[in-house]
Amino acid sequence: ILQCYNHGATKSLGHVTVVIVGGTGDLARKYLWQGFFQLYADQVGKGHTFSFYGGALSTTEKGTPLLFDILKELACPAELSVERCALVKDQFLHLSKYHQLKTTEDYENLSQQIKQQLGQEGIIEAGRLFYLSVPAFAYADIAEKINNTCRPPSEAWLRVVLEKPFGHNLYSAQALDKKLSGQLKEEEMYRIDHYLGKQVVSKILPFRKENKKLLDPIWNKHHIERIEIVLKETLDAKGRIQFYDQYGVIRDVLQNHLTEVMTLMLMNLPANLSNSEEILQNKLNFLASLQHVDNSNAVVGQYQAYNGEVQEELNKTKDYFSLTPTFAGVVIHVDNAQYEGIPIFMTSGKALDERVSYARVLFKSNVFCVQDPNNVQCKSKQIIFYLGHGTLQYPAILLSKNLFKPELVSSGDWKEVTEYKDVNVLGLQLSDYYIQSPVTPREAYCELISHVFFGRKDSFISAEGLLASWEFWTPLLEGLSRVFPRVYPGGVDNGNLLNFQLKGHQVAFSHEALVNVINPGAEDNFQVMQGKYRSSEMVSAWAQELVERLASDLLLAAEEAIREEGQFHLALSGGSSPVALLRALALNLYTFPWRNTHIWQVDERCVPHTESGSNFRSIHDLLLQHIRIPYFNIHPMPVHLTQRLCVEEDGGPTLYEKEIKKHVNGSSFHYILLGVGQDGHTASLFQDTKLENDEENLVILTESPNKPHQRMSLTFTAINRARRVGVLIMGKSKHELVSQLSRIKGESSKYPITKVQPKSGTLIWYIDYDALLG
Amino acid sequence: ILQCYNHGATKSLGHVTVVIVGGTGDLARKYLWQGFFQLYADQVGKGHTFSFYGGALSTTEKGTPLLFDILKELACPAELSVERCALVKDQFLHLSKYHQLKTTEDYENLSQQIKQQLGQEGIIEAGRLFYLSVPAFAYADIAEKINNTCRPPSEAWLRVVLEKPFGHNLYSAQALDKKLSGQLKEEEMYRIDHYLGKQVVSKILPFRKENKKLLDPIWNKHHIERIEIVLKETLDAKGRIQFYDQYGVIRDVLQNHLTEVMTLMLMNLPANLSNSEEILQNKLNFLASLQHVDNSNAVVGQYQAYNGEVQEELNKTKDYFSLTPTFAGVVIHVDNAQYEGIPIFMTSGKALDERVSYARVLFKSNVFCVQDPNNVQCKSKQIIFYLGHGTLQYPAILLSKNLFKPELVSSGDWKEVTEYKDVNVLGLQLSDYYIQSPVTPREAYCELISHVFFGRKDSFISAEGLLASWEFWTPLLEGLSRVFPRVYPGGVDNGNLLNFQLKGHQVAFSHEALVNVINPGAEDNFQVMQGKYRSSEMVSAWAQELVERLASDLLLAAEEAIREEGQFHLALSGGSSPVALLRALALNLYTFPWRNTHIWQVDERCVPHTESGSNFRSIHDLLLQHIRIPYFNIHPMPVHLTQRLCVEEDGGPTLYEKEIKKHVNGSSFHYILLGVGQDGHTASLFQDTKLENDEENLVILTESPNKPHQRMSLTFTAINRARRVGVLIMGKSKHELVSQLSRIKGESSKYPITKVQPKSGTLIWYIDYDALLG
Repeated sequence: ILQCYNHGATKSLGHVTVVIVGGTGDLARKYLWQGFFQLYADQVGKGHTFSFYGGALSTTEKGTPLLFDILKELACPAELSVERCALVKDQFLHLSKYHQLKTTEDYENLSQQIKQQLGQEGIIEAGRLFYLSVPAFAYADIAEKINNTCRPPSEAWLRVVLEKPFGHNLYSAQALDKKLSGQLKEEEMYRIDHYLGKQVVSKILPFRKENKKLLDPIWNKHHIERIEIVLKETLDAKGRIQFYDQYGVIRDVLQNHLTEVMTLMLMNLPANLSNSEEILQNKLNFLASLQHVDNSNAVVGQYQAYNGEVQEELNKTKDYFSLTPTFAGVVIHVDNAQYEGIPIFMTSGKALDERVSYARVLFKSNVFCVQDPNNVQCKSKQIIFYLGHGTLQYPAILLSKNLFKPELVSSGDWKEVTEYKDVNVLGLQLSDYYIQSPVTPREAYCELISHVFFGRKDSFISAEGLLASWEFWTPLLEGLSRVFPRVYPGGVDNGNLLNFQLKGHQVAFSHEALVNVINPGAEDNFQVMQGKYRSSEMVSAWAQELVERLASDLLLAAEEAIREEGQFHLALSGGSSPVALLRALALNLYTFPWRNTHIWQVDERCVPHTESGSNFRSIHDLLLQHIRIPYFNIHPMPVHLTQRLCVEEDGGPTLYEKEIKKHVNGSSFHYILLGVGQDGHTASLFQDTKLENDEENLVILTESPNKPHQRMSLTFTAINRARRVGVLIMGKSKHELVSQLSRIKGESSKYPITKVQPKSGTLIWYIDYDALLG
Repeated sequence: ILQCYNHGATKSLGHVTVVIVGGTGDLARKYLWQGFFQLYADQVGKGHTFSFYGGALSTTEKGTPLLFDILKELACPAELSVERCALVKDQFLHLSKYHQLKTTEDYENLSQQIKQQLGQEGIIEAGRLFYLSVPAFAYADIAEKINNTCRPPSEAWLRVVLEKPFGHNLYSAQALDKKLSGQLKEEEMYRIDHYLGKQVVSKILPFRKENKKLLDPIWNKHHIERIEIVLKETLDAKGRIQFYDQYGVIRDVLQNHLTEVMTLMLMNLPANLSNSEEILQNKLNFLASLQHVDNSNAVVGQYQAYNGEVQEELNKTKDYFSLTPTFAGVVIHVDNAQYEGIPIFMTSGKALDERVSYARVLFKSNVFCVQDPNNVQCKSKQIIFYLGHGTLQYPAILLSKNLFKPELVSSGDWKEVTEYKDVNVLGLQLSDYYIQSPVTPREAYCELISHVFFGRKDSFISAEGLLASWEFWTPLLEGLSRVFPRVYPGGVDNGNLLNFQLKGHQVAFSHEALVNVINPGAEDNFQVMQGKYRSSEMVSAWAQELVERLASDLLLAAEEAIREEGQFHLALSGGSSPVALLRALALNLYTFPWRNTHIWQVDERCVPHTESGSNFRSIHDLLLQHIRIPYFNIHPMPVHLTQRLCVEEDGGPTLYEKEIKKHVNGSSFHYILLGVGQDGHTASLFQDTKLENDEENLVILTESPNKPHQRMSLTFTAINRARRVGVLIMGKSKHELVSQLSRIKGESSKYPITKVQPKSGTLIWYIDYDALLG
């Protein structure tokens, strides 16, 4: 029987009322009453008095026997003698009552009852704990009732415990948060993620802290090869489809449990482990540093029987298909210097071959074994936070012996395991690990109920943390809402069907699906088309393929230029079109010869380079910060010279022109990448820009009709001298312009883009299907 | 019996004279005569006539029977019938003669004899091939004799084949090259590295070319985990100590054979595989991109019996110790965008547990195996160039089947192997590989002799390539000349004693040596000492420990500043002292919070930032190019504003001052790192620098007594406002200054460094033992 840790005596007095709303439901039966019984057993005689209410919609007549059935089954905590337990249990039963909680009046009644009872007995009220074990749609209503009728006197605390799901995506989570926060203060809400009550999970930060000195040198991209965060289930969703089909595996497991585990593993260590504020702030910082995740970073599956279960449990016809994934594999990357490039494989699924949950950090091998490869030093190095089940069967923290001997987390409730069963855990024999495990396994709910009582908010989900996690997961969830999951048979029959692999930062299943009843090859349409547009070459494709083609063309141009001249001079535009291109260059074209590439700007807004509106800033954030390019090869436009922006006297354009002439052979850039505005402008050359006197100039100041008005820009003289000019046009909003331009021959003063006519270089249009076909 | 590949008919006519100098020696007996016999068998009847001379120091009477003994043992090429072979061999014996080659007269005689014979028979001379199978010290003398007496008529070619060793280090290789190039043209010299004649080695480039499309995406740092280039021998050096003890394993194997293999694997693919010029250029480019290697990147060993063998064979006393390594493990890094960060483990040794030679590329695992981990996709991915011996026993190129199916190199002399013995090759079963192997194994010398005949210079070592390789290896060899190798017992008894591992870019043996008779714990002296110097804190240690301590103090200061203000402002000096520090920061302190660090300059020389004399340039090359720091956080001193350097009108100091005030809270840098010149100057503040009016200024222009005279520098006002100032003093040349300064209390106008007195910050002196103790 699981038991809670005794947190020691407390001196404060007063009465605590516990109300389990939904007190006769499944969760209450399985975990909650046991947890509160344990709490009571721990606390009785230490200064607090208690009363417990199980509330539900049924009448008292119906509810009371239901509750009694639950209570009589409560198990004795191991540390109590049989006699003592009988006594305590008797007291507990005596203090526990059923109370109908349906209408506002019911809640008023309850509050009255508490007041009266305490008034009669002359006891001060310490606090009221409401545990909402009800479907999430009822939260707002119940919170309102509690707020209106059940608040304790001002000197006592109110704590309301909530269970996931907390919303369905960012927007519904925000809406729920808004509703709840209208009724309850943030410090009154205790959002449970029961993973945070798991002993191994709650030891992640203490473990990292205790072993900081030894972990610091290796806890980074230079040493970590990959991270895996895994929850595999053998069970399916049968019987729970009503709930499950609305959520699926990502909302059910990844967004909350696995994200919490990842965060604890990789967030900055707080200086003070009991400072909830600092922990929260570090968690938020970590979540903010995650790279955007979308369909290209995930694979999803659905066990074969699922759809039939959906049809049956949701009363759907035989042609109904649910797209809800029951399996997901996602690869996450962290965008900071410490972890960048480390793939974090996060995966969970139902109907898999085994039940196991763990998070492991696999380190790169730094050993060269000249001889004796079976030596422990030659084996893989890893740290595993093992949550249970699988081959090991108990929760533990495991370290390969060739890493280091970890400090035992000090509090005395953990022990070192030195008896090794002959089992293999994630590639190593058990005897190859240092193993730490809790002295007594405890139930997560039991832990968390005690944490609610002690007000330890860091074991719960904050509103900010919740929204940050939804913000991260929502784009992927939206993207996946139109993706057919791969169908898998379930159990060991899945074989290698669900294995997936990285390609750059993207992932795909490793093997072709043999049978895929739902999705007969929908991905065959992505082809690149070549043709003519305004008498020049045109490449067209769907956005992603177009960008990949452009990136690959740029690579060819760079290689050619470097072969011939040793350097590649590339001028980049601002605006939205190049964003995807810059991402592709930064993330996928590994062999781009950045060391010999010079980056110039086509145009710039007259704002400081560090501001978010700056074109340079966006080139920096999307590209430069991800690549290794010499400082000297970066040529931002000098819009900000003597602390003022783009003033004539500063001669910024002349300065940039000088710099171009100094570095670029004949002032002919090897490649200029342009975009086009819906009004037909390109670079920062607008319909009204006066160009007559600018035959000689390469760089000028211009005025945009849009804010910020002041701009610096290459001139057509500079642009048309380039060896290659690429014009990238993407999105439906450009379709009309693309049509119009195709009807105009030669130049038109209305559309500055028509003046792009390289003298001896080539012009290529890159137009995506959205812009081309509307 | 091995045989040479028949390169097909050639139409040119004429006579070829082959002279093996050292024609009765070991190498000639084992390989050379067989190779030339094969060449003759291949070429007879195809237009050339031949004569063969074996030359040596002995008289004709003594030499002739020696040569005959060798020739009669020649084996028949497999493609010849027994009758045909008997005929050809008879002809070959008839054409082969012994000729004494000792004095200049001997060479003159030889030349006369060739001329006479050809004149009599009326045959045109096509060329003369001298194969110098003699000790390297004789090369220069023989080359001179050949040049003076044995040159063929001008229309015929002269080719002189040389064997390693080509020098002992860069300087002796240069000296040898100078001597030889005074006698022979570069195109006349064929320097043999017999590895280049090995079939697998000569297929590396064709293999890469044939599979370019599939290799390109993975042949880079993002996919390659490590590279191993290995030659393990079971033999020892007994009986060859006279030669071996002068060279050791690095000169014997790593500098030539393994370096060639590495180069072929990683050099840029030439567009044309038969363009020797392009291949050479790409090889040189690759060698130039290798990171400097010194003692910290290598481990060395010596088998236990070696020293006794040295004492015996070199007639040394019992207290003589040889430091020559018979085992070496080196980790090499390539300093380019494609391969940076990939560790290349290069290792070779005598008296090891097995005989095997291979080069392998191990790829990162990109697969996550949800189930079925024994699936081929879940196994390791590697490409192996297997040179022979070991478990496979034949030369082959192996690719894990989960990579891709390689193209078979087209020339028809290679085959796909599809019969799998039940053996494990480097972690995978043979059946897990695609395997290509030569149809007929051929001896390297046989191949190379044919390449000399056909003038295929790309199979030989060029002078430039040779010197580039020596340039790379010489600093390590010099460093190791004072290092005691770890003693190992030899054979399987070595166990894990020679396994070594990476730490950052450095390497060390993985295990403590149990017995180390030669070197009883010399490394215990390295301790850090703390004390007072000039009333401030002082840290002292040997150079490397000092730098590590300073780097670690900087990290602490950065973490504190970022915790408090979100940013860390660090100002760095120029000069030689910070070099090691910057290296340490760039390579070892992985978790330094660069993203929130701003880099400022303490002082700068008035030269363009891109020039090598620029302090900024050295900060860039040593540090900035290796780390990921936002562009905006880099603050070079503006010495170069409107195309002129440090002119007053440009107001550079004012501009920098403004920038400091804008970013740095209260203009108080968090850390300023200073050095001290032997004359006591610090930053660019010299004895004569006028400082009276500079109470207010943070930045000024100054004049140095040394070139370049013009400087820009922070003032004492700026320096003394810093929260922390570190002064780093290293090297014996600073000892006198350190002594003098310790006797001066307070300021002295003679020594500007004495004016460093932070107002409210702290000053710490970092002085290495050389500077402190002299």
